[in-house]
Formats: sequence, structure tokens, C-alpha cells
Amino acid sequence: MKKRPFIFITNDDSSKAPGLRVLINEMKKLGDVFIVAPDDLRSGQSHSITVNQPIRRSLVHEEEGFTEYSCNGTPVDCVKLGLKVLLDRRPDLLVSGINHGSNASINMLYSGTMAAALEGAMEGIPSIGFSICDYGWNAEMKDAAPHVLAIAEKVLKYSLPKGTALNVNIPAYSDEAIKGVKICKQGDGKWDEEFDNRIDPRNQPYSWIKGNFVCNNIEEDSDLWALKNNYIAVVPVHTDLTNHEAISGLRDILK
Amino acid sequence: MKKRPFIFITNDDSSKAPGLRVLINEMKKLGDVFIVAPDDLRSGQSHSITVNQPIRRSLVHEEEGFTEYSCNGTPVDCVKLGLKVLLDRRPDLLVSGINHGSNASINMLYSGTMAAALEGAMEGIPSIGFSICDYGWNAEMKDAAPHVLAIAEKVLKYSLPKGTALNVNIPAYSDEAIKGVKICKQGDGKWDEEFDNRIDPRNQPYSWIKGNFVCNNIEEDSDLWALKNNYIAVVPVHTDLTNHEAISGLRDILK
Repeated sequence: MKKRPFIFITNDDSSKAPGLRVLINEMKKLGDVFIVAPDDLRSGQSHSITVNQPIRRSLVHEEEGFTEYSCNGTPVDCVKLGLKVLLDRRPDLLVSGINHGSNASINMLYSGTMAAALEGAMEGIPSIGFSICDYGWNAEMKDAAPHVLAIAEKVLKYSLPKGTALNVNIPAYSDEAIKGVKICKQGDGKWDEEFDNRIDPRNQPYSWIKGNFVCNNIEEDSDLWALKNNYIAVVPVHTDLTNHEAISGLRDILK
Repeated sequence: MKKRPFIFITNDDSSKAPGLRVLINEMKKLGDVFIVAPDDLRSGQSHSITVNQPIRRSLVHEEEGFTEYSCNGTPVDCVKLGLKVLLDRRPDLLVSGINHGSNASINMLYSGTMAAALEGAMEGIPSIGFSICDYGWNAEMKDAAPHVLAIAEKVLKYSLPKGTALNVNIPAYSDEAIKGVKICKQGDGKWDEEFDNRIDPRNQPYSWIKGNFVCNNIEEDSDLWALKNNYIAVVPVHTDLTNHEAISGLRDILK
């Protein structure tokens, strides 16, 4: 009898996030699941790791084909701890999410959800980060769920290029059905921060980051275009940040 | 009279780091400096931002041509707070470092020093992250300093491609003089973690991340090759993580 696939699951919205529970439910249809999720919100944690503090975990629940840990670290810590300490078996697939909020375009860089997926890819595991473009804790995911299942199933079957993870962003729920899946490049956008500056009761200044996402340019082959047109956007991402096109010009300048 | 260049400085090793002081000293030769540095160690913080806590800063020192703030946030928070709250003037250059330890190869992804430089590039400011391949707090930087100055001077003069920062890694001090500067691509390496697993006095498990850097492949046009051969490695980095070559293959699989 063929063994059921073994699926590692994490996120950055904590083990309490509804998006994680939807993802777990879908993945249980495909295989045995092993979850290591942060014990609290870890949004915007990017690829950070905990080097100056010890990393703690606790077993939340265990039954046949289902193991769930909670961890005080970042999403990337969860992946590293899971693969190197908690498991003696290699996952066939790593999935992260479903993130409450878009990780399209430049969000890729700030996202703990996507960093966890990239970390999986670095370890040679086919890895996918899922996000829905709705920041609400009550985001409706009933249309998203079958797509999450279908994409995960295909990646289990066909695998992914070495060192490459998928950044999957799903349009927020609406009356219009999702049109399909587009394979895209990362779109050109940025966050325009407006800090909310306040004075505390001890007369000391403090600031809250808040911001507006700005699309610089919605090119038709980008994730921003796909989402705007109600497609699921799938961007293959890797760990090479080199701007290869800039190399020869710099040789002239810095010689 | 031409205004002196205005230079924004940050790092991830905190305002107490010797590498920051060396960088400040060199930049003062080129222009007026404005420093926003983390108030404590922020190694491995990558591109993380603080969204669930308020960000605080305090003015450490101010004199003609020199302003220094300390901030409780991440390196990227320092850049955002500096540019959006503390300054009403646009820097001509942003520099981050000098980091105590290599940010070559995959370290690019985990590095707060480099994330701060990328954040500067995203804001359209010519930005450079400097690191020395010596983790010691007492790393000898006397050979590195003139190179830091020369590279910063050239970037001030010629600028950088849009959205691109430089990841500059300098060999650790040795008897042999640095051979020169190589413009490179990000090298192929990874961290192989070995967790140090312990039991606390309350009988609870905890783990410390530790690891060994592994070169997968030292290609001659990579930062790993340059550093191994005692060159300064300069990699132009940008924010696009798309694996463009993987797009067409995925269209077949995920259709």
C-alpha cells in the first residue's frame, strides 16, 4: 500500500488563525499533516530567525495522521525547528497560510508566510504559500478552499523546480466566481507608510506603522493584474535576489 | 556653495556596534550624517517590520552635520521611521552596517543589514549594505574602511539602477592585502542548522538555533568565490524574487 503523503503546515497568523484551520482541513484530504505554527501573530516577520532567545514549542494535539505544535518563534523558526528537531521524516510538501491578507507584489518581502515557504524550498521540499486578499479574521474562504486543494495536489504530483516555492494569492470572496489560475511575475508595487505618531502618558513619542499599498505599474503578466481581474495569482519565487542585469554596468562604475 | 551630501546610516547590530562607528567615521568624510540604529541586537531580523507594537525612538546626540537616533524596532523600521517621521529631507545615500559577519550568499535573505539597504532602494535612494566576514565584536576594520569610503563615494557620484541596492561583503582582516573589488552574483549556499536542545529547570524543552554555513557550489562569478579569493564581493540586489525561468513550465503543470 502506498504511504499517504506527509504534509508540513505552518503560517504567520498563529495557530488560532481561521486560515490555518481551512488549510489543515484541505491538506487532511491529501495526506497526514504535521503542523508547527507560531503561538501568536507573526505578521510582517519576513525571513527573520530567533538567534538571541531560546525557541520553545508545545505539543497541542496528536492523533493518527495529525500532529500539531505551537512555537514561540517566527514562521521560519517553525520550519527549521520542525524539520531539524521535531521530525525524523521528510515532508513531501510544505504549505504555509492561508494568510489573512495579500502577499502579492512587494508583500512577498515582508511576509512571514512566504518566508516559511521559501525556507521549505531551500530545504528541497516542494513548498507553497497561500494568501487570501482579505485581511479580516472572518475572511470567507469557501471559494478559495477547493483551489488550495487543487494546487497542492498538482504540486504533490509534479513537484516544483529546485529552490522554488509558489506564492499563491487568492482574490477576496465576491459574487463573481474566481476565473482561474494565472502564473505570473511579482508585480511592481510598494507600501507608502503613514506613521501614526502619538505621545504616551509619560510624554514620550511613539509611532505606529500604517500604510497604503501603491501599485506602481499593473503589467498584464503580474500578480497584481491577475488579482485585479479575479484570477488566482501564482508566482514562482526563489532565493536569488541578484539583479543580474545590473552586473555589467556596475563593473564600469566600481572598477 | 554646493551642499554636502546627506547620508542616512543604520545597521542591525545596534547603535553600540563598533562596525556602525567605523561606518559613521567614514561617511562623515563624505557628508552630513543622520543615524537611526536599533537600540539592541537585531541580527537575523530580515525584512521584518513591527506592526503589533508601537515603535519608539530617542535622540542620542545632535551637533552640526550629525544626528543620531536609537530605535526599538527592526532595521527596516529604522529606515521607515527615519524617512517618514524624523526627516523632512531626502538622503542622497543610505548605508547600512558595517555588519559583524558575512551577508554573502543566502545570508542576504536573513540579514537585517541588507533588508535596511533594500528598503532604501525601494524608496529610490542609492543604498549599500556593508558587512565584514568576521563575527567578532573586535573585528579589525582598518583595511575595510578605505574600501567602504571608496565604494560609497562612487555610488554617490554615479548612483545605482532603480530599485537596486549593493550587498558589499569584505573579507576578514588578514596578512594578505585585499585584492580588489568583484561585482558578483549571489552565491549558492545554505545554513545547515543543528539545534542545541535543552531542558529548562521547569522540565520544559527549549532550543537554540545554531548552524554551519554550507557552500553548495562556489561559482567563479559569485560572492562566495570572490571572498574565498580575498576580493571584496559586491552583489547588486533587488526586490524581485520571481523565478522567471520557472514560469512557462508551471503554466503546463497548473493549467
